[in-house]
Amino acid sequence: MLKASYLCARCLVDQATHALELAVEDPGERLSIMRGVVDLLHKDYPERIPAEIGTMVHRYVMERSGKDPYASLKMKSNEAALMITSRMRRENLTLRKVVLSAIAGNAIDFGVDGSRDALHSLEEQLQKGLAIDHFNRFEAEVGRAESILYLTDNCGEIAFDQLLVEYLVGHGKEVTVSPKQEPILNDATVQDLISLGFGRMEGIIPHARNAIGLMLSEASGEFMKVWDRADLVIAKGMGHFETLYGTDKNIAYLLKAKCIPVAKSLGVEQGDHVLTF
Amino acid sequence: MLKASYLCARCLVDQATHALELAVEDPGERLSIMRGVVDLLHKDYPERIPAEIGTMVHRYVMERSGKDPYASLKMKSNEAALMITSRMRRENLTLRKVVLSAIAGNAIDFGVDGSRDALHSLEEQLQKGLAIDHFNRFEAEVGRAESILYLTDNCGEIAFDQLLVEYLVGHGKEVTVSPKQEPILNDATVQDLISLGFGRMEGIIPHARNAIGLMLSEASGEFMKVWDRADLVIAKGMGHFETLYGTDKNIAYLLKAKCIPVAKSLGVEQGDHVLTF
Repeated sequence: MLKASYLCARCLVDQATHALELAVEDPGERLSIMRGVVDLLHKDYPERIPAEIGTMVHRYVMERSGKDPYASLKMKSNEAALMITSRMRRENLTLRKVVLSAIAGNAIDFGVDGSRDALHSLEEQLQKGLAIDHFNRFEAEVGRAESILYLTDNCGEIAFDQLLVEYLVGHGKEVTVSPKQEPILNDATVQDLISLGFGRMEGIIPHARNAIGLMLSEASGEFMKVWDRADLVIAKGMGHFETLYGTDKNIAYLLKAKCIPVAKSLGVEQGDHVLTF
Repeated sequence: MLKASYLCARCLVDQATHALELAVEDPGERLSIMRGVVDLLHKDYPERIPAEIGTMVHRYVMERSGKDPYASLKMKSNEAALMITSRMRRENLTLRKVVLSAIAGNAIDFGVDGSRDALHSLEEQLQKGLAIDHFNRFEAEVGRAESILYLTDNCGEIAFDQLLVEYLVGHGKEVTVSPKQEPILNDATVQDLISLGFGRMEGIIPHARNAIGLMLSEASGEFMKVWDRADLVIAKGMGHFETLYGTDKNIAYLLKAKCIPVAKSLGVEQGDHVLTF
């Protein structure tokens, strides 16, 4: 599990600032909510995992504002990603190609400054190789696995996840896809997946009401049954890496290392794409 | 006096991050100090003036690290600015020209993200006009004043202040220049002024041990005598505007509105140059 860095304080306050600007108009209300965000930081920073503090911060901004700040951006991300994936479906898609795309799709993230413009550079992201490349093991694990649990991350990105899930289902795997039940940041929800056509071939079981990454302590009994049964877990994004790395489970992490603390803990450069176990 | 905005939290944590990266190598020590910075924010945000919270933050980083993070950058700023002012001295300098230069010099600031590269754009800053232009009143006040108190802000900038102070002294004014006693951020200290040749024609009396802006409650008795006696106060930079605006004193504020909260409170755009009373 990832420990907080001195850099996480700035990132968390930056995330709260961005969410507030999307969800709240009144300057006084923004200030009052930011005061509460500082309280949350004071309570949990740096003891908890950054993704967990981020969860608390985004839940708080949504509760106080009564709004989902990212609803409209999420829709735009899906539309932009679908434009690309509908074109890709006409090509001959190998496992490696869909895996690389799923990792590139992780560039779409409104939680991290520098990744908010990723929609414009998606094509560029798709050309990028892997700084850590455990594809051979991944391919072997997929070959062996009967039951696969797929933990999704952001909207937009889920269009690329869909290609990978389709590939797995098409090769006879039993796949359960696990998003969030309700909105947090730009994470995909059950409803977001259904809108994209997930659920026709695979099961959807959310692992949390709303959370960045996966906190096993908050997961439902229904989810834990799938978790226990899965031969392979495919975990998308930094949040899952932050909260699950080191867990005694066969987990493939597919992510773009968007921040310096995560990049350092993986021994890669910020911005690198990673497939690791 | 300027009230804190929701944006100030991000800026204050950003300032602490920048100072830590300059002063401290060890990641664990950086994190521990950042934890203390969050404590300071929790204690005073948003009740106190942003410049006052910034003062607490920078004092704390210096105390914990035992270092002045900006020592080397301050020297570089002075050198870069002196290159320009030594060229300017050969020209025919009007009061308006030196005032505009002193305001443009305020662009040099390592406390505000976006102003840290100002050294490269100094020439550009010098071409910029005033979004609030009370020069006519300023000229009249200077004409009337016998005793002028000049509150300096950043290093680098002080080379341009020097041109204005020379002009005032050359026109028979009694000028006292007031920096900080000890380092904070990139603010000029007594020693920085002496190095540049201040003090040959005018008095130097610091107004605080170290502080962003001017907290009258912390000022020395010696300073307060000059303050009370001054017919005109020339206050450089956002910190003085934040801490003094609304004070019952004849104060000319010369500044670049580097952040959105200060720009909004002045009714100008971020980045605008201002001469106001």
